[in-house]
Amino acid sequence: MADEILAIKQAIRDVPDFPVEGVLFKDITPVLKDPKLLNLMVEALTEYAEDKEAEVIAGIESRGFIMGAPVAVELDLPFVPVRKAGKLPWETVKAAYELEYGTAEIEIHRDAFDEGDRVVVIDDLLATGGTARATFELIEKMGGVVAGCGFIVELTFLGGPEKLEGYDYTSFVRYGAGE
Amino acid sequence: MADEILAIKQAIRDVPDFPVEGVLFKDITPVLKDPKLLNLMVEALTEYAEDKEAEVIAGIESRGFIMGAPVAVELDLPFVPVRKAGKLPWETVKAAYELEYGTAEIEIHRDAFDEGDRVVVIDDLLATGGTARATFELIEKMGGVVAGCGFIVELTFLGGPEKLEGYDYTSFVRYGAGE
Repeated sequence: MADEILAIKQAIRDVPDFPVEGVLFKDITPVLKDPKLLNLMVEALTEYAEDKEAEVIAGIESRGFIMGAPVAVELDLPFVPVRKAGKLPWETVKAAYELEYGTAEIEIHRDAFDEGDRVVVIDDLLATGGTARATFELIEKMGGVVAGCGFIVELTFLGGPEKLEGYDYTSFVRYGAGE
Repeated sequence: MADEILAIKQAIRDVPDFPVEGVLFKDITPVLKDPKLLNLMVEALTEYAEDKEAEVIAGIESRGFIMGAPVAVELDLPFVPVRKAGKLPWETVKAAYELEYGTAEIEIHRDAFDEGDRVVVIDDLLATGGTARATFELIEKMGGVVAGCGFIVELTFLGGPEKLEGYDYTSFVRYGAGE
């Protein structure tokens, strides 16, 4: 797996000053457009979700949809979209989380899964962990069990690991500060 | 297939007055949360894309990501996200399209595919066809070939079929006016 992880790391593109000045954005679209790497990531996330005995796969809008939906299909499991406020059409349960300035909200349809279901959450990137943490709390509020969370990329220097303490998660490509 | 299409149609949920008053929104999340129906849709879209000799799968943000990514994985093809303006981090090519009031823009990364590549576009719903048509024009502007387009749901009374004239597309569940 080490060689393959390196290939993914090499494919990820640094985009300076996106979405705002001073941020070095990790662009995964080159991974998506290489079928070998795309399949590799889906396989790795699928194995993780299987290992965690997932009963539901939840993908966080919107890059988490790209990685999460194939995992659900591979494992023959339900796929649940976790969306920003106002995007889901039916009745939702919400959770707020803090941004640098102000707060944002995420939502899940209130019939998205059953009480006690083991949910594995998928997203592309762990940075501050704010969205993931809010998603976990939302799942628990709805009676679900957060069985784990799979990311492709992890930025290790933005407090994500601390924010997700007490939860199981995995990531495949890690960057330290300045990387 | 007829029974299965009926099962999908029965699972789709009508949500009145979303996103605005007077619109009867077709909510596909109940299809996504039923693994049998989700797999059925992915299989049907995969067959379509294979039949069209797709070399690239493009998904339109963001429900098109949910259906498109698994198709790319199944066929071992690149996945290209088509996004609303400002969401893609790197250099993009854009196309504008008309909304009821004003215009919107969609973007694709300029290195998303090679000249001459056969692109199959995936989205969840065909309504007016504005976004799909703009996506086709964008793909052609970038030197790609629009090999076809797959939707789950088609609203037949909003001008979509006319808007996509000259292009090959398919849909699995169709609604007429008032349905």
